[in-house]
Amino acid sequence: MTTAADLADRVLSGDLALHELEAHTDADTATKARRILLAQNADADVDVDLSTIGDFSFDAATAESAIENMVGAVQIPVGIAGPLTIDGGALPDGKTHYLPLATTEGALVASVNRGCSAIQAGGGANARVLQSMMTRAPVFCVRDVHEASAVVSWVRDNEDRLAAAAMETTNHGELTELTPYVVGDSVFLRFGYDTKDAMGMNMATIATQAACEVLESETAADLIALSGNLCTDKKPAAINAIEGRGRTVASDVVLTREQVKDRLKTTPEAIEEVNTRKNLIGSAKAGSLGFNAQAANVVAAAFLATGQDAAQVVEGANAITTIDVRDGDLYASVTIASLDVGTVGGGTKLPTQSEALDILGVRGGGDPPGTNADALAELIATGALAGELSLLGALASSNLASAHEQLGR
Amino acid sequence: MTTAADLADRVLSGDLALHELEAHTDADTATKARRILLAQNADADVDVDLSTIGDFSFDAATAESAIENMVGAVQIPVGIAGPLTIDGGALPDGKTHYLPLATTEGALVASVNRGCSAIQAGGGANARVLQSMMTRAPVFCVRDVHEASAVVSWVRDNEDRLAAAAMETTNHGELTELTPYVVGDSVFLRFGYDTKDAMGMNMATIATQAACEVLESETAADLIALSGNLCTDKKPAAINAIEGRGRTVASDVVLTREQVKDRLKTTPEAIEEVNTRKNLIGSAKAGSLGFNAQAANVVAAAFLATGQDAAQVVEGANAITTIDVRDGDLYASVTIASLDVGTVGGGTKLPTQSEALDILGVRGGGDPPGTNADALAELIATGALAGELSLLGALASSNLASAHEQLGR
Amino acid sequence: MTTAADLADRVLSGDLALHELEAHTDADTATKARRILLAQNADADVDVDLSTIGDFSFDAATAESAIENMVGAVQIPVGIAGPLTIDGGALPDGKTHYLPLATTEGALVASVNRGCSAIQAGGGANARVLQSMMTRAPVFCVRDVHEASAVVSWVRDNEDRLAAAAMETTNHGELTELTPYVVGDSVFLRFGYDTKDAMGMNMATIATQAACEVLESETAADLIALSGNLCTDKKPAAINAIEGRGRTVASDVVLTREQVKDRLKTTPEAIEEVNTRKNLIGSAKAGSLGFNAQAANVVAAAFLATGQDAAQVVEGANAITTIDVRDGDLYASVTIASLDVGTVGGGTKLPTQSEALDILGVRGGGDPPGTNADALAELIATGALAGELSLLGALASSNLASAHEQLGR
Amino acid sequence: MTTAADLADRVLSGDLALHELEAHTDADTATKARRILLAQNADADVDVDLSTIGDFSFDAATAESAIENMVGAVQIPVGIAGPLTIDGGALPDGKTHYLPLATTEGALVASVNRGCSAIQAGGGANARVLQSMMTRAPVFCVRDVHEASAVVSWVRDNEDRLAAAAMETTNHGELTELTPYVVGDSVFLRFGYDTKDAMGMNMATIATQAACEVLESETAADLIALSGNLCTDKKPAAINAIEGRGRTVASDVVLTREQVKDRLKTTPEAIEEVNTRKNLIGSAKAGSLGFNAQAANVVAAAFLATGQDAAQVVEGANAITTIDVRDGDLYASVTIASLDVGTVGGGTKLPTQSEALDILGVRGGGDPPGTNADALAELIATGALAGELSLLGALASSNLASAHEQLGR
Repeated sequence: MTTAADLADRVLSGDLALHELEAHTDADTATKARRILLAQNADADVDVDLSTIGDFSFDAATAESAIENMVGAVQIPVGIAGPLTIDGGALPDGKTHYLPLATTEGALVASVNRGCSAIQAGGGANARVLQSMMTRAPVFCVRDVHEASAVVSWVRDNEDRLAAAAMETTNHGELTELTPYVVGDSVFLRFGYDTKDAMGMNMATIATQAACEVLESETAADLIALSGNLCTDKKPAAINAIEGRGRTVASDVVLTREQVKDRLKTTPEAIEEVNTRKNLIGSAKAGSLGFNAQAANVVAAAFLATGQDAAQVVEGANAITTIDVRDGDLYASVTIASLDVGTVGGGTKLPTQSEALDILGVRGGGDPPGTNADALAELIATGALAGELSLLGALASSNLASAHEQLGR
Repeated sequence: MTTAADLADRVLSGDLALHELEAHTDADTATKARRILLAQNADADVDVDLSTIGDFSFDAATAESAIENMVGAVQIPVGIAGPLTIDGGALPDGKTHYLPLATTEGALVASVNRGCSAIQAGGGANARVLQSMMTRAPVFCVRDVHEASAVVSWVRDNEDRLAAAAMETTNHGELTELTPYVVGDSVFLRFGYDTKDAMGMNMATIATQAACEVLESETAADLIALSGNLCTDKKPAAINAIEGRGRTVASDVVLTREQVKDRLKTTPEAIEEVNTRKNLIGSAKAGSLGFNAQAANVVAAAFLATGQDAAQVVEGANAITTIDVRDGDLYASVTIASLDVGTVGGGTKLPTQSEALDILGVRGGGDPPGTNADALAELIATGALAGELSLLGALASSNLASAHEQLGR
Repeated sequence: MTTAADLADRVLSGDLALHELEAHTDADTATKARRILLAQNADADVDVDLSTIGDFSFDAATAESAIENMVGAVQIPVGIAGPLTIDGGALPDGKTHYLPLATTEGALVASVNRGCSAIQAGGGANARVLQSMMTRAPVFCVRDVHEASAVVSWVRDNEDRLAAAAMETTNHGELTELTPYVVGDSVFLRFGYDTKDAMGMNMATIATQAACEVLESETAADLIALSGNLCTDKKPAAINAIEGRGRTVASDVVLTREQVKDRLKTTPEAIEEVNTRKNLIGSAKAGSLGFNAQAANVVAAAFLATGQDAAQVVEGANAITTIDVRDGDLYASVTIASLDVGTVGGGTKLPTQSEALDILGVRGGGDPPGTNADALAELIATGALAGELSLLGALASSNLASAHEQLGR
Repeated sequence: MTTAADLADRVLSGDLALHELEAHTDADTATKARRILLAQNADADVDVDLSTIGDFSFDAATAESAIENMVGAVQIPVGIAGPLTIDGGALPDGKTHYLPLATTEGALVASVNRGCSAIQAGGGANARVLQSMMTRAPVFCVRDVHEASAVVSWVRDNEDRLAAAAMETTNHGELTELTPYVVGDSVFLRFGYDTKDAMGMNMATIATQAACEVLESETAADLIALSGNLCTDKKPAAINAIEGRGRTVASDVVLTREQVKDRLKTTPEAIEEVNTRKNLIGSAKAGSLGFNAQAANVVAAAFLATGQDAAQVVEGANAITTIDVRDGDLYASVTIASLDVGTVGGGTKLPTQSEALDILGVRGGGDPPGTNADALAELIATGALAGELSLLGALASSNLASAHEQLGR
């Protein structure tokens, strides 16, 4: 039988390609062969020991749907923030939540935890998914603006046919929006789907492809790319910040002046001033689509823990934080426009990620479908709210840097 | 001695706070206690088994600078893409690189790998760090626009004093830029530092705080927040896309028509058309700051593997891809405006992440300082270039969805 | 009878307010009194002679709906560009157009004229209005995100009632879109109307106010402002660039290689390169919503000539220019997302502006309603296309500055 | 001698081009010939009478630097708002100003006038020019990112040579900033000039062209376009909103609670709430670069009256309005990032426009140079502040639509 070392040699000598290893041996041996290859490829003076990367708790063969050319796994520490109670649209009443957060940024979990403590002091947060719509927007080429106009008219008149073609490809999704955009001889169609508990990008892509075939066969439009960047996937884009993508979700809380003093060591007015000058005016001056303090920190940490797509943290940063002093108390909210989450498929199937979803009670498909992903969105938005309260409070009481000095690197 | 189960009970009963466990026991037991707590907190019908989260390869005590309220670790599969040769500004000549990518998105590593193969066919890529500057931008309050103008004048006249105060806090960093911005009675100062091999946000924060103290003592300005969002950290923001943050880095390659046909199964003209209609016109219409196909995918996967801050993927998505048909051949480039990377500190110290940096030969401080982080930036930019070539090629040859159907979920 | 000089004295002495003059005399005398006042208010060493401002061709009394505190009129030179033939959706077939342009920027009319000559050589342009929708977006305050969600649901369920209330205020307009947006405890509703030949902002405002009254009486929402800036009126905003406001209109043309050489002294490839590097990549890097060379120049000049609202030039700059070399020939297009135009009401009623609309054959209401404003939009978009061709051609043949030196100041 | 009618016939028959008329007759006759031509070109059923367009108060021949293919002039009513006192950086102490505003939007001058009244009640406004810098940003092509990096290094090392070349072309301007930006094989250089009392775009263009010639002769960079859209001229662009263009200018005022009640019929808190929800949160959600209520209205009207470039209203809309309740009183500010103004050259030389500059005492070059344009910027910013106070106050007291009903169309 071929050993991992032999296989590594064959790749280094050019006899085999990196991705062909699984065709010659089992998944574990292929993974090991690549680690050997990397050690041999290293500079003479570097001892590349990949023992911890090679020490993972899942079956390499079962990871095939998540990774190619596998060498092992990276481990990211997970901490929890809580307890947290939320009056949400998809969350069970009265439950106490602990939010798993995977991060390497010291002080982040502590910061969110402090925010959770403030929210709990205030009696818990509200949360609500306001929209659920995964998008895919192909771009077509036409001859001229007359033809572009004709194609748009055809689309508006035949939305049913396009929807039928799209829906034949899926048992779960539902086409809920279809918006055409024209730029000269380019026609974009933004398809929006309710993809239930799946994040839904693959579902949306496959369904859209079927609809594109109908459009191409019935009109003069030629498909140029199944994604024309009006989706917009994994790029900062105003269209997502405005119209939403994935879940649009909001969370808020009211804290009394005393709770603000007790938990955040400052006043509602001071937090409002930080929010206005930093999150609103500062972000305005920066030409930003994110009017918040650290929403991406919480989104990223929750995404990593629960098996979401880390690149979609980009979209999850489209969040607006508002602070309002109401009769001397503090109203705080976070609204995330485009939070792409799922509780089935993708990274959610991996062991550690599944366990993290179990911590939240949202693993797998919800009942009714979509409610688990909705619940996850509400949990993340509330975690983001906790992070905002904590950081705004820390800035208001002038201790950002010292917090980092104490807890950080 | 107190057992983990006892400690879990004490937290659930409210006797102890979640973050106080380490004060009563060792790090491993505290971590275990939290896992027990989470199992007990779960719904009766859910069996929360956190055995894989609890199975990690590092010492819980040493992770203290990266995480609080630790329960374990999440494992994310790592694959490699390569071989790849790069003519860079900080990379050793002639070395063959394999890029470690941690992701749960099936088909991503295969896609980057295909792009690497195309780049290798073309003789390797060029790469260059164009700017290195970590920023922090506090916001101050003044009385009126007259005072704002006076504070700005003082800053311009006393840049040396502010720099001296900032530089007293660090042995490594260097203040290289200081730009004032005024909005009514708010004054923002954007401090930019060369932070060498550190990503540098903590260094920048601490140095800036020292400078702020000087400014507050010498002028009428009152510090409102040490970060005023003109930094801009972890939010999509034009200021980063325009002026850069962290590393501004570019990579490019020329492929002959035959190489495009052989490796990407399409033509230079078809790839150019996809790039123009999708990445340029589509992103323009979307109000985007990211004019690329999937740069964030590669940035995220490389960040996770090498211990970078996952929330800064947001900034790493500020990338522009250009395609130009030159005499029948293909010129392709990716320029990332704000890539926040480091090879010392933060998540880079964890075992699996250190090993990933060893794969690339860039672990720890470079010689001269800064060159390891520069090299990492050049590697990631070239990985992003590979991802762009592969995805644009796939779209051009109309096989995006089928690639996902085959390799994906 | 009171003379103008007496009235001026009374204002200067504080006995009368500036806007009260019309209550004490006729419109012409009031206007004259203000000119006297301004002369007297001037520095001793400045002889303020307002004789040309005072020399206007319309009745001061009839200008009352356009101006207050009138002192006279400013005169802006008008030139014409043409001939121009356009295959449009609302323009009569085969007609030869001359576009009136009011500007003080030397070389602008000549530039557009040169572009018209190129378009004519190519057999004329295509143009098409793709959408017509004037918007107004009030902002409401609610208690929390639960209430926000409830208000949005009520709006979706009661769109008919809101539409009915809105439509009672107008004989012309039609509510065609109603989109809710939520940020924390703020709810925005973007109302979109087909306002036919009117630019329609007042119509939209009045209709929206009526709808707001229904919403306030039926839900917990409290109106904060009738415009919540999601309209977005007279501010650069991605929502307009993406979703459109007023008319979304496109124009394009194909020029042969010979026509490009003959009229623009360059090649299709050179123009494409300028467009890609300047209008696409340059605007991308600038964080811009305008991907064009000088669309605003043509929009502004046509707006001034025809009595449109000059502040809405801001929205008219949301234009994307595309250039594509097709089989050696040149395809060029301009798409303006948000062009706010009308042929009735507002400044279109003034004498010189009416005459300019007569030049184009689009004065007053169209038959059917809306076609005159559509035609005006198609004319302006084609004028913008002419301006793009001319300037891109000039840049490609490296003569921008010299053109200014010859024709400019 | 050839009559105007004869000349019109020759143009219609194709014997003469529209722009050749001045070569065959005097300026007035050429203008008249074009009016005849337009009347003859009209549809049979339309009587095109251009008598008011033909009735202008300036010499057609002297308008040659402002217009081509002239047919006459459009007249736009001018009203005045005031009195207004301003403590500015360039304005004479204690002077009473009246701001000339040219507009066709009914209620606008009245609105600004009401705001002026509030400002006067508060003791007058502060204003300050914070930066003065006209920009031009050419784009160059290079071979690859290595060459891009080399060109940038050359520029940084040879800024003196580029400045010297630029400065040889002008007696007035001064190169104050030079910032390179790289996107793949495109290099952009943003040149910033102090152009004193000129708006300065032509000066900047000519000076930049000279610098480009040096760069092209000394490096591998090839000039693609003298403007690469990073200037950014007449397009909405974050680079202008962040870094400024032309004048960056701010104005503010404090009104007591009683003054707010007396003049604006509302409270400081109500105005703050409208500003936060509309101008800050609403504009944030809209993906806007303009965080204000109607700054463009005032900028446009002042630009038209004083001979500025109407297309640059686009940039003048990059304004942020802030409202802060201070101890029960109202602090209000407007900061315009990119206000392109001049008091010499261009449209400022025309008779009505000159008179409008005389009204403000800022006609021609200032002493020292630049102070007249600075003063104009401070006047416009304060006018914008007046417009904001008035409209925010009107919205707060719920009378926007009714104001329009009374004064508008």
